[in-house]
Amino acid sequence: MSGSNFGNIFKISTWGESHGKALGVVVDGCPAGLPLTEDDIQLFLNRRKPGQSSYTTPRNEDDCVEILSGVFEGKTTGTPISMVVYNKSQRSKDYSAISEIYRPGHADYTFDMKYGFRDYRGGGRSSGRETIGRVAAGAIASKLLAELGISILTYSKSIGEVEIDYDNFDASQILKNPLYMPDADAATKAEALLKEKMSEKNSVGGIIECLVDGMPAGVGEPVFEKLDANLAKAIMSIGAVKGVEIGDGFDVATSTGLTDNDGFKYENGVFSKTSNHAGGILGGISDGSQIILRAAIKPTPSIASTQNTVNKSMENIPVEIHGRHDPIIVPRAVVVVESMVALTLIDMIFMSMTSKLDNVKKYFDK
Amino acid sequence: MSGSNFGNIFKISTWGESHGKALGVVVDGCPAGLPLTEDDIQLFLNRRKPGQSSYTTPRNEDDCVEILSGVFEGKTTGTPISMVVYNKSQRSKDYSAISEIYRPGHADYTFDMKYGFRDYRGGGRSSGRETIGRVAAGAIASKLLAELGISILTYSKSIGEVEIDYDNFDASQILKNPLYMPDADAATKAEALLKEKMSEKNSVGGIIECLVDGMPAGVGEPVFEKLDANLAKAIMSIGAVKGVEIGDGFDVATSTGLTDNDGFKYENGVFSKTSNHAGGILGGISDGSQIILRAAIKPTPSIASTQNTVNKSMENIPVEIHGRHDPIIVPRAVVVVESMVALTLIDMIFMSMTSKLDNVKKYFDK
Amino acid sequence: MSGSNFGNIFKISTWGESHGKALGVVVDGCPAGLPLTEDDIQLFLNRRKPGQSSYTTPRNEDDCVEILSGVFEGKTTGTPISMVVYNKSQRSKDYSAISEIYRPGHADYTFDMKYGFRDYRGGGRSSGRETIGRVAAGAIASKLLAELGISILTYSKSIGEVEIDYDNFDASQILKNPLYMPDADAATKAEALLKEKMSEKNSVGGIIECLVDGMPAGVGEPVFEKLDANLAKAIMSIGAVKGVEIGDGFDVATSTGLTDNDGFKYENGVFSKTSNHAGGILGGISDGSQIILRAAIKPTPSIASTQNTVNKSMENIPVEIHGRHDPIIVPRAVVVVESMVALTLIDMIFMSMTSKLDNVKKYFDK
Amino acid sequence: MSGSNFGNIFKISTWGESHGKALGVVVDGCPAGLPLTEDDIQLFLNRRKPGQSSYTTPRNEDDCVEILSGVFEGKTTGTPISMVVYNKSQRSKDYSAISEIYRPGHADYTFDMKYGFRDYRGGGRSSGRETIGRVAAGAIASKLLAELGISILTYSKSIGEVEIDYDNFDASQILKNPLYMPDADAATKAEALLKEKMSEKNSVGGIIECLVDGMPAGVGEPVFEKLDANLAKAIMSIGAVKGVEIGDGFDVATSTGLTDNDGFKYENGVFSKTSNHAGGILGGISDGSQIILRAAIKPTPSIASTQNTVNKSMENIPVEIHGRHDPIIVPRAVVVVESMVALTLIDMIFMSMTSKLDNVKKYFDK
Repeated sequence: MSGSNFGNIFKISTWGESHGKALGVVVDGCPAGLPLTEDDIQLFLNRRKPGQSSYTTPRNEDDCVEILSGVFEGKTTGTPISMVVYNKSQRSKDYSAISEIYRPGHADYTFDMKYGFRDYRGGGRSSGRETIGRVAAGAIASKLLAELGISILTYSKSIGEVEIDYDNFDASQILKNPLYMPDADAATKAEALLKEKMSEKNSVGGIIECLVDGMPAGVGEPVFEKLDANLAKAIMSIGAVKGVEIGDGFDVATSTGLTDNDGFKYENGVFSKTSNHAGGILGGISDGSQIILRAAIKPTPSIASTQNTVNKSMENIPVEIHGRHDPIIVPRAVVVVESMVALTLIDMIFMSMTSKLDNVKKYFDK
Repeated sequence: MSGSNFGNIFKISTWGESHGKALGVVVDGCPAGLPLTEDDIQLFLNRRKPGQSSYTTPRNEDDCVEILSGVFEGKTTGTPISMVVYNKSQRSKDYSAISEIYRPGHADYTFDMKYGFRDYRGGGRSSGRETIGRVAAGAIASKLLAELGISILTYSKSIGEVEIDYDNFDASQILKNPLYMPDADAATKAEALLKEKMSEKNSVGGIIECLVDGMPAGVGEPVFEKLDANLAKAIMSIGAVKGVEIGDGFDVATSTGLTDNDGFKYENGVFSKTSNHAGGILGGISDGSQIILRAAIKPTPSIASTQNTVNKSMENIPVEIHGRHDPIIVPRAVVVVESMVALTLIDMIFMSMTSKLDNVKKYFDK
Repeated sequence: MSGSNFGNIFKISTWGESHGKALGVVVDGCPAGLPLTEDDIQLFLNRRKPGQSSYTTPRNEDDCVEILSGVFEGKTTGTPISMVVYNKSQRSKDYSAISEIYRPGHADYTFDMKYGFRDYRGGGRSSGRETIGRVAAGAIASKLLAELGISILTYSKSIGEVEIDYDNFDASQILKNPLYMPDADAATKAEALLKEKMSEKNSVGGIIECLVDGMPAGVGEPVFEKLDANLAKAIMSIGAVKGVEIGDGFDVATSTGLTDNDGFKYENGVFSKTSNHAGGILGGISDGSQIILRAAIKPTPSIASTQNTVNKSMENIPVEIHGRHDPIIVPRAVVVVESMVALTLIDMIFMSMTSKLDNVKKYFDK
Repeated sequence: MSGSNFGNIFKISTWGESHGKALGVVVDGCPAGLPLTEDDIQLFLNRRKPGQSSYTTPRNEDDCVEILSGVFEGKTTGTPISMVVYNKSQRSKDYSAISEIYRPGHADYTFDMKYGFRDYRGGGRSSGRETIGRVAAGAIASKLLAELGISILTYSKSIGEVEIDYDNFDASQILKNPLYMPDADAATKAEALLKEKMSEKNSVGGIIECLVDGMPAGVGEPVFEKLDANLAKAIMSIGAVKGVEIGDGFDVATSTGLTDNDGFKYENGVFSKTSNHAGGILGGISDGSQIILRAAIKPTPSIASTQNTVNKSMENIPVEIHGRHDPIIVPRAVVVVESMVALTLIDMIFMSMTSKLDNVKKYFDK
């Protein structure tokens, strides 16, 4: 069916397979008048490209984006923005070995069950390269949010057992280490861990954290279209994510009302909360404080160790996944999480514009 | 806006406020031919009614459902099923004290920011009573799933620090204790904990777990409409939920590929997995094994202890929430989680019916 | 499936069968702050009630509406507005004779093909009484439009061969004659025609015309969500409508570019068009001039003459439809057309609020 | 906003401007297993290309389509099919003269009102070239319909006052004359008419008719998602369409129940109708007989005669539209109408697959 569409007003439609001709996205619903260049998009795409370090895929993915429509004289026109990234080399040969095999932890088996067959080259549509469309669209959403004074900070909170120390938190470090950690020491330890896991033909998982500042109160629709509900869907739709939490998340299970409730205060003309266990969302609606969310990312399923599996002919066989696979998905997923958050926020902001009759009238007056 | 609709093919539209005239739901998209009576619905609604134990709300909520359309001669007709539960007593008096106050942990402030004013009686639309519509619709979804051989088991996995012991797991216990725990010992300990918290004018959170059996492989749409993504949204849309996880969930962050990958095997003509860390979903598509998910529920925000807050006139004031409030939300939310899972599954099953041209032709042949 | 929902932001969900317990609608997405009473709704519903004249159904349908949610202290709260009309008497007896018969011109056969069986009482869900939900919701949409300075005038343009004379056009006549014609002479002639047709056990069709004033330029989305495309769907979704046209409509087929093109002019500081063949819509977007549309309504299919048909057992049989049936659908459909236009306009106005980044910023500034 | 998406299950997202880099479409929701090549698409696109005759645009538009994703080893994979047509020459120069002018009958003014500015090159997004995406997607929808035994025949019914004679109806003529008329004599007369209009610097409109055979009974959703309602929207969303009718269409206004009602009969084991005034749809649901619809197409608005208009500076000016413009839109719109009908039918067929519980179970059994 039609799972490659996201959004209600700011809508995107992504397409493309890992080793097909190209991947891309159509963005429909971007307001007219936003200055936009291919560089704005490329900057985001570069954040999901493999780095130079030993534990990231060495293949040279240029992932050079081209805007085909929707921008005229440097500004968005309000009509669909089509973006494409051509695959430089398609190397189908590399993957022919796995065409008949159901790799553990991958979607090979489920795609065959669903569709009867699959594009097995590099994972086809279930490859991590699918996120190119998300990130290209996320770049536009982020630029719109910036125009509205909203910023998003996303980083690796933990890699395996190595967690950042909030006392060492330094946002400027995030782009300085290949693991996107805001703590240089943790990043160093995590790199060592990854080397160890690679030598063991193994992989590890981790946690991505995302903070949103500048979000006004009042965004999010009660009941089913809560802001946190939509964020949860957006994040869980990313390939390797197995858990999502907002604010204190799973810790609320062992907290108490006295601790978990955030008090309100009014000081020097400013309304605020005395704490932020809720992570900026109350009753599914933004409360004006920082939005906090986390995603649990599973270990890379492609590992070089021998695993038990079954092939299409229902024979039990061993499999070893060779090739260029990172022992960790987390760093490359950081910009994907940020993109999905941006896409969700801009769409829900647009959805909330008709909450009050007074707002509608204000729009109408011009 | 329009946050009270859920589903793409099996669609529901819920409505009603805690202390308004009535609450209800319209279900559009239920196939014709399902035997359905008001008893089917009432059975589910009763599971969210307060029990007789000391820690649940003593008020007598009959919550008697009436089917107003869409059922003829005992079977669904394929047209909208409208269900209503009239509020027996509206007791607006009880709540007038809080009309001007922003209760900590509640949506009072965010509703005012969004809409300019709110129905403050008993939380209005943000009350837990909003879930009546979800559960009434969930009863129908569950009955449809049963027709397809799919069953859902939902229970309290933990209440505060008290967790069930899987060695004591006994599904038959779930409906026998007021906490819906599948472990009688844990339930006894949890009851003691709740009494203690009540005496301290405090409250606790917990975790709900949900297991789905009989789910065929191939349900869920790649990319944005993944089965787990939709489950995450559905669960996170429930009032007090702050986290959702599938399979091993947040534990994957510290797991490794060798552990987390579920192997495949073929034995005695049966294809299966050697483990189920993935929780029954690979690449967003059901893999035919048990679906496992968990929701983190925050402590009841309504507590009798004194808290700091602000009123509509921006005055700092203390507040104590008196009245009939459970010190725990978890047990009453169990059937809500089950309902949201059922609603999500049936909708995604329906969405997956056109995945293969052969399936479409099969439908067409009759 | 789920055909009883309409709208993207201002969403409605209607339900109910002709002879079931009740009919109603849930409106989700109405902005908060609109003053609303049951009288506002009743006024619209009364316009679809049968009159006292000899050619309209004599049965006394009170169709008394009750608002069950979404309004607090006299104003909409922004949450779902549920409205219900209980059926006073259900009279299933009257209709048992047709339970096995496929009436010509009715949906009996197609409902059976689609659902396997049907609620045959009075047409069930395919009865004209289904429009109660549309009209109740349309009353709210119309009130919103009025707040934005937009008004809609709808009337019978022709009844059979009797057409209004625009030289006699008098809007104040519309509510004064039972045929809702803006031309008293035409109304008199049409009444005579209807008496004749009744005596012949026959029925006639006609055309409804609708004019919208005060519509700002810029509403409607290019390509598939054009304003005229959505109006066409809305109107064609009304039971007996077989054609829809905008502006000059089918006459454009024999017109020429020189005639059909509306010139633009700027006079005394006012931009306008020199003619309005386009009916107020260019490229699917409102152009600020009057919107003009027409709907062709088929003759009442329920006639007392003998017709050939087939029953469920596939026997060829004659059928005569007795009972209380108007020989004309047009007058009762006038308010239904107006309601569908209002629902479409308000939804498309809401959808167009994010067209320009400047508009989004303006909303955000407050 | 997001008007470039169409469909609920078989979804398309079109993009591109007349003189931008490229135009295209993403199709999401095509079942896996359909054999598909670029030739299948090109065949459809060629039908909207200008011919060699004197009254069609002489520019050489190759409009060569490329499939970028969603097809593997010659068959659709069930994932998004992205198709692109690059614009060979962009010739912005030709159109710079009209960048400041609001052309009568065009969307220049309304685009400016909606978005603040526009891509004025060749009409930008409101150009007839926008239909490339519709037709490319329509080719796939048509191929799916053919697999289900459904065929569509579309042709010019009239060009100006020249109408086909049904006694001369010859479907094999349609592709043999540049006007796509199923009556060679009428085509000859229409060509003469067009030459005359060109010499007068004028243009004409016409009517397109579409017949669908093989449609099973039971497709279409009651109330708002009626089959005819969706067809009406689909057709009215095509640029120059000002009216849509089903079956007898506007003629029902002057018909009577005795004439308009189609009787049912059962002969030699076959259920059928004795006539087809309804055009194959009863109560919004297909009745198994031929679906008949017509679209009224306005005259080409681009004419070389002098017209009155206004420019962006609100100056009254004369304008003459020179360049390569056909004096008739009808023939090139024939395949667009057919495509929109195909897209609507396949989507509604998919939507109707869950109408009966028995159907759902049948799907589930395999």
